[in-house]
Amino acid sequence: MRLSKFFLPILKESPREAEIVSHRLMTRAGMIRQQSAGIYSWLPLGKRVLDNVNRIIREEQNRSGAIEILMPTIQSADLWRESGRYDDYGQEMLRIEDRNERDMLFGPTNEEMVTDIFRSYVRSYKALPLNLYHIQTKFRDERRPRFGTMRSREFQMKDAYSFDIDKDGAVHAYNRMFVAYLRTFARLGLKAIPMRAETGPIGGDLSHEFIILADTGESQVFCHRDFLDFDTPGVETDFDDRAGLAAIVERWTSLYAATDEMHDPALWAEVPAEAQMSARGIEVGHIFYFGTKYSEPMGATVMGPDGKEHPVHMGSYGIGPTRIVPSIIEASHDEAGIIWPESVAPFKVGLINMKPGDEACDATCERIETALANAGVDHLYDDTADRAGAKFATADLIGLPWQVIAGPRAVANGEVEIKNRASGERQTMSVEAAINRFTETR
Amino acid sequence: MRLSKFFLPILKESPREAEIVSHRLMTRAGMIRQQSAGIYSWLPLGKRVLDNVNRIIREEQNRSGAIEILMPTIQSADLWRESGRYDDYGQEMLRIEDRNERDMLFGPTNEEMVTDIFRSYVRSYKALPLNLYHIQTKFRDERRPRFGTMRSREFQMKDAYSFDIDKDGAVHAYNRMFVAYLRTFARLGLKAIPMRAETGPIGGDLSHEFIILADTGESQVFCHRDFLDFDTPGVETDFDDRAGLAAIVERWTSLYAATDEMHDPALWAEVPAEAQMSARGIEVGHIFYFGTKYSEPMGATVMGPDGKEHPVHMGSYGIGPTRIVPSIIEASHDEAGIIWPESVAPFKVGLINMKPGDEACDATCERIETALANAGVDHLYDDTADRAGAKFATADLIGLPWQVIAGPRAVANGEVEIKNRASGERQTMSVEAAINRFTETR
Repeated sequence: MRLSKFFLPILKESPREAEIVSHRLMTRAGMIRQQSAGIYSWLPLGKRVLDNVNRIIREEQNRSGAIEILMPTIQSADLWRESGRYDDYGQEMLRIEDRNERDMLFGPTNEEMVTDIFRSYVRSYKALPLNLYHIQTKFRDERRPRFGTMRSREFQMKDAYSFDIDKDGAVHAYNRMFVAYLRTFARLGLKAIPMRAETGPIGGDLSHEFIILADTGESQVFCHRDFLDFDTPGVETDFDDRAGLAAIVERWTSLYAATDEMHDPALWAEVPAEAQMSARGIEVGHIFYFGTKYSEPMGATVMGPDGKEHPVHMGSYGIGPTRIVPSIIEASHDEAGIIWPESVAPFKVGLINMKPGDEACDATCERIETALANAGVDHLYDDTADRAGAKFATADLIGLPWQVIAGPRAVANGEVEIKNRASGERQTMSVEAAINRFTETR
Repeated sequence: MRLSKFFLPILKESPREAEIVSHRLMTRAGMIRQQSAGIYSWLPLGKRVLDNVNRIIREEQNRSGAIEILMPTIQSADLWRESGRYDDYGQEMLRIEDRNERDMLFGPTNEEMVTDIFRSYVRSYKALPLNLYHIQTKFRDERRPRFGTMRSREFQMKDAYSFDIDKDGAVHAYNRMFVAYLRTFARLGLKAIPMRAETGPIGGDLSHEFIILADTGESQVFCHRDFLDFDTPGVETDFDDRAGLAAIVERWTSLYAATDEMHDPALWAEVPAEAQMSARGIEVGHIFYFGTKYSEPMGATVMGPDGKEHPVHMGSYGIGPTRIVPSIIEASHDEAGIIWPESVAPFKVGLINMKPGDEACDATCERIETALANAGVDHLYDDTADRAGAKFATADLIGLPWQVIAGPRAVANGEVEIKNRASGERQTMSVEAAINRFTETR
């Protein structure tokens, strides 16, 4: 992609209302634009990151055996009356009346609807286990939306819903998602720690939040330092191996980890002082087992092996992609701007032509551009007439993992400079070597 | 994917309310489920087709130079008051009041919002041309939603918006989308004919609908038979070549083609009788040039090369992915079910084990399954205990382009049968040959 043909509205000033660094950087880097309070457009750079985040989420959901669907945003109030949540939900639910004066709502979550889908098709335990997920726009009419897309009113959520014949099965389903989440966050470049959590309006008796540590986190969290050294379950993990998954979850829940709400000073005191880590945390995922809370009132039952009807045991599992993006920035930035992990970077390589119009610089850049394009390496070629200093500032601000800098002096020697955004390390090498560097290690 | 682990709720009966074949087949094949009047969930099989449709739309939008963003579903009424459309739009607009009693709406289209984005960042003609698109959920509160996702209230739309300094530029932007649409529909397996259209509530003075011919089409259309033999612009098409694109558009608009509304019996009479083709048509795309209709009232101006402020010339370009899916079925089905073009098929190959539990059948199917998986060929392996007849019926109903059938007799000879869904042709070949057939021609 050439910058001259891209739409990257870089801002010099931070928006006044931006209280946290990710909101400032996403706005300045032209990733998002606020349309109304708590409602954002994703501009091209932001959309590319969001797509990468969603791709990784999907891959790990699919790997764990979950199946993708797409439920609508607008739901019938009647469905929520069946579970009793229509009246409970309060002002955060965006209530709507359609032209026929039917009560509708913009879904804040989908437990009721997915239970309705389940009960209309599934009759037998033989169809279980089942886990259906979707990535869909949600709306929660927050009293005080803020922090950009970190706490917006309209947002994306990946929500998965598991159905099992009994609690044993449901716990395995829970463990599957637990492990899938560990893998997802690791691939997103996040160190997420699972912490016991309250179940809130979803209900149920088993729940974990996945929390990343960041100075600007919304809440205080307390955990054992050893979590930082835990290995992420590998790509070879067998999601059908009940004992194997249970062992992973056991290990990841064996040490103290609690949010403010669940913090227990007595248990905390038992953690060796040198292992106590108290920090600010951002919730990036939340999983629930809630048994038959929805299946009973809504009549979602299956015939069991015993020939009797059983209400299914359910869980739900949420990750907010539009919240993940700023969370990654909170965890990975510096004075100059964003530092993207390669897995979610909007482009892997930024190619900077320091002197467009100079024949040698143009030819060198075009040669590199062609090589990257042919190898399928996402790149952004800054071919604009801006001065070099502005180009460097933009490249650092938007945080592409690698910069390839073509200036007249280096190019005259058949060379370019390569800069790693994270370390700041610079290296001069031949054009050939630079091309191989990115096309071979892909 | 193994069918025993997939969620494919096949129905024997057609829903009573389904008036057209695509609605019946999508429901019976477990692709969609109605949640409320005109509001649907996309179940796993349907979601896979929808994803393929969107992938092709994206690729052709990107090829033409359009840039993807994601605007929100919920918009401020104030924005629509600026263009005057808030009062004009009528009951199809889903109007919403948020908790702070602000007037909001669920976007039926995005001319106002994208114009707002444009005016807040772009100051100079040098940033033009610009074309921003998104694929987002829309809502139009139709008085009479019907035909499944063909005319639903909640639906997806790909809507693109072009910005140019003058009419000449805007016409080139229009031609770009015109050609991108020709390529998109061809890749989707559709023969779409561009027809002059009324501009309706979008406004403007140049507009084409892209119409496919199908017996169940919603309106009568009239066109020259030669359209059916026109070649689709190739992958090498240069979208920056103004004259080249104009020539393509000229050719595709040189013959008579009109919807009922625009039909002119006098001009029609000039078409040779043997070339007159009158048929039912389904609108699958609609493009508009509307000049400064939004940019003037909303103040979207740029500094021109003459140093003066100019309101930008705009166009908008829509395709409905959730409408494309049933349109493809209307154009491609038979008594037994759907016949997917390979480009959008939910899986390319259906692998049918006629006797699960039989050691040789299982081993053969697993060998083929592994080979397809390793080659990245999407496949659905029917490993269920259903009887063979039911499996064949399901395979035909869901319309996968190829079926690989492993029965005990063939397998004993080291062979399987391959069936082409479209032609019905069957061929017996060695397992080796069957594997090569799908892994080499990919």
